[in-house]
Amino acid sequence: MILRPPNHWFIRLFAWHGSVLPDILFRLFLNLLMSLLALALLDWYETLGIKLTLAPFSLFGVSIAIFLGFRNSVCYARFSEARLLLGALLIACRNILRQVIAFCPADAERVQAMLLAFCASLKHQLRHTDARDDLTRLLGSEAEVLLGQHSAANMLHLQLSQWLAKQRQIGVISDIVWSTIDNNLNQIAAVLGGCERLASMPVPFVYDLLLRRTVYLFCALLPFALAPDLHAMTPLVSMFISYTFLSLDTLAEELEMPFGYKNNHLPMDAICINIEINLREMSGEKDLPQPMQPDCHYRLS
Amino acid sequence: MILRPPNHWFIRLFAWHGSVLPDILFRLFLNLLMSLLALALLDWYETLGIKLTLAPFSLFGVSIAIFLGFRNSVCYARFSEARLLLGALLIACRNILRQVIAFCPADAERVQAMLLAFCASLKHQLRHTDARDDLTRLLGSEAEVLLGQHSAANMLHLQLSQWLAKQRQIGVISDIVWSTIDNNLNQIAAVLGGCERLASMPVPFVYDLLLRRTVYLFCALLPFALAPDLHAMTPLVSMFISYTFLSLDTLAEELEMPFGYKNNHLPMDAICINIEINLREMSGEKDLPQPMQPDCHYRLS
Amino acid sequence: MILRPPNHWFIRLFAWHGSVLPDILFRLFLNLLMSLLALALLDWYETLGIKLTLAPFSLFGVSIAIFLGFRNSVCYARFSEARLLLGALLIACRNILRQVIAFCPADAERVQAMLLAFCASLKHQLRHTDARDDLTRLLGSEAEVLLGQHSAANMLHLQLSQWLAKQRQIGVISDIVWSTIDNNLNQIAAVLGGCERLASMPVPFVYDLLLRRTVYLFCALLPFALAPDLHAMTPLVSMFISYTFLSLDTLAEELEMPFGYKNNHLPMDAICINIEINLREMSGEKDLPQPMQPDCHYRLS
Amino acid sequence: MILRPPNHWFIRLFAWHGSVLPDILFRLFLNLLMSLLALALLDWYETLGIKLTLAPFSLFGVSIAIFLGFRNSVCYARFSEARLLLGALLIACRNILRQVIAFCPADAERVQAMLLAFCASLKHQLRHTDARDDLTRLLGSEAEVLLGQHSAANMLHLQLSQWLAKQRQIGVISDIVWSTIDNNLNQIAAVLGGCERLASMPVPFVYDLLLRRTVYLFCALLPFALAPDLHAMTPLVSMFISYTFLSLDTLAEELEMPFGYKNNHLPMDAICINIEINLREMSGEKDLPQPMQPDCHYRLS
Amino acid sequence: MILRPPNHWFIRLFAWHGSVLPDILFRLFLNLLMSLLALALLDWYETLGIKLTLAPFSLFGVSIAIFLGFRNSVCYARFSEARLLLGALLIACRNILRQVIAFCPADAERVQAMLLAFCASLKHQLRHTDARDDLTRLLGSEAEVLLGQHSAANMLHLQLSQWLAKQRQIGVISDIVWSTIDNNLNQIAAVLGGCERLASMPVPFVYDLLLRRTVYLFCALLPFALAPDLHAMTPLVSMFISYTFLSLDTLAEELEMPFGYKNNHLPMDAICINIEINLREMSGEKDLPQPMQPDCHYRLS
Repeated sequence: MILRPPNHWFIRLFAWHGSVLPDILFRLFLNLLMSLLALALLDWYETLGIKLTLAPFSLFGVSIAIFLGFRNSVCYARFSEARLLLGALLIACRNILRQVIAFCPADAERVQAMLLAFCASLKHQLRHTDARDDLTRLLGSEAEVLLGQHSAANMLHLQLSQWLAKQRQIGVISDIVWSTIDNNLNQIAAVLGGCERLASMPVPFVYDLLLRRTVYLFCALLPFALAPDLHAMTPLVSMFISYTFLSLDTLAEELEMPFGYKNNHLPMDAICINIEINLREMSGEKDLPQPMQPDCHYRLS
Repeated sequence: MILRPPNHWFIRLFAWHGSVLPDILFRLFLNLLMSLLALALLDWYETLGIKLTLAPFSLFGVSIAIFLGFRNSVCYARFSEARLLLGALLIACRNILRQVIAFCPADAERVQAMLLAFCASLKHQLRHTDARDDLTRLLGSEAEVLLGQHSAANMLHLQLSQWLAKQRQIGVISDIVWSTIDNNLNQIAAVLGGCERLASMPVPFVYDLLLRRTVYLFCALLPFALAPDLHAMTPLVSMFISYTFLSLDTLAEELEMPFGYKNNHLPMDAICINIEINLREMSGEKDLPQPMQPDCHYRLS
Repeated sequence: MILRPPNHWFIRLFAWHGSVLPDILFRLFLNLLMSLLALALLDWYETLGIKLTLAPFSLFGVSIAIFLGFRNSVCYARFSEARLLLGALLIACRNILRQVIAFCPADAERVQAMLLAFCASLKHQLRHTDARDDLTRLLGSEAEVLLGQHSAANMLHLQLSQWLAKQRQIGVISDIVWSTIDNNLNQIAAVLGGCERLASMPVPFVYDLLLRRTVYLFCALLPFALAPDLHAMTPLVSMFISYTFLSLDTLAEELEMPFGYKNNHLPMDAICINIEINLREMSGEKDLPQPMQPDCHYRLS
Repeated sequence: MILRPPNHWFIRLFAWHGSVLPDILFRLFLNLLMSLLALALLDWYETLGIKLTLAPFSLFGVSIAIFLGFRNSVCYARFSEARLLLGALLIACRNILRQVIAFCPADAERVQAMLLAFCASLKHQLRHTDARDDLTRLLGSEAEVLLGQHSAANMLHLQLSQWLAKQRQIGVISDIVWSTIDNNLNQIAAVLGGCERLASMPVPFVYDLLLRRTVYLFCALLPFALAPDLHAMTPLVSMFISYTFLSLDTLAEELEMPFGYKNNHLPMDAICINIEINLREMSGEKDLPQPMQPDCHYRLS
Repeated sequence: MILRPPNHWFIRLFAWHGSVLPDILFRLFLNLLMSLLALALLDWYETLGIKLTLAPFSLFGVSIAIFLGFRNSVCYARFSEARLLLGALLIACRNILRQVIAFCPADAERVQAMLLAFCASLKHQLRHTDARDDLTRLLGSEAEVLLGQHSAANMLHLQLSQWLAKQRQIGVISDIVWSTIDNNLNQIAAVLGGCERLASMPVPFVYDLLLRRTVYLFCALLPFALAPDLHAMTPLVSMFISYTFLSLDTLAEELEMPFGYKNNHLPMDAICINIEINLREMSGEKDLPQPMQPDCHYRLS
């Protein structure tokens, strides 16, 4: 995720790292070539009776507006839902820990470690990275068992659930307290299930396909439609319009699966550290980790 | 469901299986014929004073944008709600099993089988397929009774409810624990009812009808409006615009009822196997089923 | 509600009963007359310096797109909410009955009859029809008292609530069981209140008025704007554009109050029979009513 | 709120009272003057080289569509949320009363009066009217204390909460029953807080400002852009387009704060009477108030 | 936040403080210069064969409409969510206090102070201001400990939770009452977590970047496209169109992070005072703070 850089017009207008420009540069260059081709051949193919005008392009506009606008909303909605789920994770972790601190202070430290391990497992599961380091740091030797599992986060959730049931069985907490805390465990399970759903079921591929074909063919034909009217201005206008359409296409693809390491993905490292700071502070620890700082390009990972 | 193929431009642009192209090929061919007809007859019918220009087509654009955009959103919302419900099914199954493992470990295996049978019944009910094999594998001889029922999933839910009430009656679980687990049974009932609602109440048929008539007449008239301006380019532009509109129409129809076997339908087999893997792992089984792999066209069923 | 007819192109394109065409036929005929008038008088009124071009109609397009698109979404949202509420009714009825079967099997039959009577009362209240037959069939002589009430469904709900409280008082169910079932009674009350709200508070009338005035004036002026360009094609294009706008207007009006007997209204008879089949099957009855079949025009009432 | 008048085309098309026409008549007249001015001066200012064409107005169209469409959706969403909250009030009042009738029948009458007083206080608070008459009718001498309060509805809610806690203290209801009814008190608090939020925090004023400036300047310039093409038809087309834009602007302003007495505001008197009828019927009273009837212009207050 | 000024046309149309005009004045001036440049050089660069027409700008319109409309909706949705969360804070505070007054009247004053301190901490955390004065006023010497914390609001929440658990332990409240109040503490935690999420995760920066580049380049090229048609009217039309696009861009940026002190930000001071008035009135205090009054420009901070 790129944070907002300071409010200086140069940075805000020409920021390179937040932009999707690097990804589409090659395609813009192709568009430039196409424009020059259209200009060079204009006189020749007009004599053949072949010509394109801008009028039918307003009809393209309708379908492209539907495709791009729709895909953009849908992908942003996925990004936004992922953000909401990770926000709910912080809320649920805090609630579980404050209830455990109040009723089972003896085990608070252990529960805190399991909650943090749950967050770390979730992060690594969604990013397809290795959870070994994080889990070993938090759980010590118990981590080994979890690493071989299909879903370590789910198994940790099961362990939390069993620990809680045991507290009730040995009389540390009453039925009602158990039920109240179990309710927050349900919240965490909803976060886990929601994130897995987002990661495993993308937007139907056919939208991707349709959009790409429409946008690419549109950008390829555009210079030929602009050339008769605009002459020397054709490359500028053609590249500008292509830039906006190609950018939206690329951006939607990035936002659709927001759990990775790309520029506009969710800063899951920063989120996990933030949860850790919050939980450790609630446990009264003094030596808190530092919040993650954005790098020189205002990026958080 | 078609998963995203590897990021190679050729596959992403020319993928045949994810596309709705095969479904609309015949109609595109008709559009090509119409374009050629428009070109051939252009001189003749212009002498009769009959002509079409592109200007009124921008007004068509308004109504088509409303129809297509609206129907597209509505059908995707149904697809998305179905996905959400099946995601909630995984979450609720996990929660029920973890609570049963903690409080009635003796019956955990039986409950797990009933939950899996519930998922299978739901799948077969929604796809109108025969649940016999799946139910017999999971429940053995008990399956026979369920197969004759109007809604096997609902009867399984009733059995789960009765089993739970009996645990409370014989004192295995307390009132509060019963109520907490029963709450998750309500979640499963909501998934069942929600999927049945989606399957039994389509989008009002009149939207389908209106859209089809508008799009077909639009595509039929378009070549005549393009011909006076574009001459030889008419077939290309006409087919391209028709392609986008017909694709959206076909796609919306596929997404509206997302429980079948078509390309963009939900991969209910994979979802059921995933639930099975999760539940069996929680029960400590070692011999887990393999996650379903997409076929060579990146399809999951 | 019209179900989707079999996938035959002729039926899908020319279906008469699902269409709103019959409702707007007269207005389309008026539009045809206007088109012929515009053609006949074209030469005469152009000599008076009066003329209309298509250019300002693209500005009309903006406001009509806003009105039609908005009203369409809003009315469909009401239809969709009604569908959701009736789906929730099935879910809540099942949940209440399964809990009653588990805890008060002696009274299960009576509760089932009251739930079915609740559904029937709701249906008749929303459709302003006489509930006598249904209530007498389900409740026998007790029906008489309900028929004179302002809201029979609400009084049935009160009776259910009192029956439940009595079970708790005489010790059949515990406090927690009472509270859990009462929670599902709240769900039913939410369905009742939600449907009453939809039925008693329409979309502000001014939207209806604004849309109608804009669309009618637009369709009346359109032939005069098309005539100078299209000559003989004017009636075809004018009627086609008018057809799409008038259809959407008529359709929105139908969907806004979805509880009646019109083509695109909710099939409340079928929904009530479906609930009856489900509840009776759960009680172990063998002689279930038949699901309602659509008539020869694929209609469910 | 204007109810839908009977389905007679004359009323539906020319209804005066449901329309926002009276509010914008003066501005339409100004637009007419501007049109005549544009026509009269056309020849003169064209000689000065000053001219306007319709082409740039399609770009205005984009921004106006965004503004109007957005503001319209946002204001309708507020109207719709208010309607939902008042619907939830009816549901919650019924649920509380049915629970009180079942468990504390002795106090049912008093609770009913307090619920009705809560509704009346809410109504008067939102409309900035004097609650004295309603509160005195319902609560007798107790009303006096409430009238001086900052938020009478909130104080009534506190009294209900205290009455309920006392019932639990003196053993009339158990802990669980208390908790279940208290849950419905939370619902009522949510309605109160939601309505207060709607009433105290309008849509950011800058939207109002931007929209007004854009629409007014657009309507002022429009005749000059239409005159060169349409000549004598300019006033008709200009007034028609202005009518649609000004209507939407005025309508949005009305719907934004839906608690007043304007035509399209919520019929809070009718809603309160409806709640009263429902609650009194549940208490078995025979002498119910009459539902409020719309006046001769189909208006409910 | 700017409240709606009195309904006087002059104020409503020319209000300076509610407008974003001051922020974009410089950019409008640049646009004016560009227009004059375009007019001055028109004859010269047309001889070079360089020209721009309005036709391709309708294609720009598509992408700008998608960008602006989307970003506008997204940013308003954030503003609206923030408003909803702060409304939920009032509701939850009232509910907690009424439950504490009913069950632990002895500690009501202390809980009230902690709730108000929670609100103040949240406000200062979101606005990055110093909470010392507010916390000292409300909590006295206890404030000191909180000021050094990473999240004072979260620590206050933990203290509330611990106080509540202690009441249950010493037998002042029963299990169920504890659970019911704890449920409302969860609500407050959700408000805190939701606001932190809004404040820490902006809309992906790339939308900001794309929109700005598209809008700026559009506004820079527009005068050259208008000049050939409109001549002397170019500056007026160009500035007007630029004004609407630049305003929306600036406004979206303001609404995206709605917790500051800008014109259209949420009036958090007024909200906190309102909560204080409500809670103090419930405690029976007579000497209530005054509701915050808007300043002479109708602003609330």
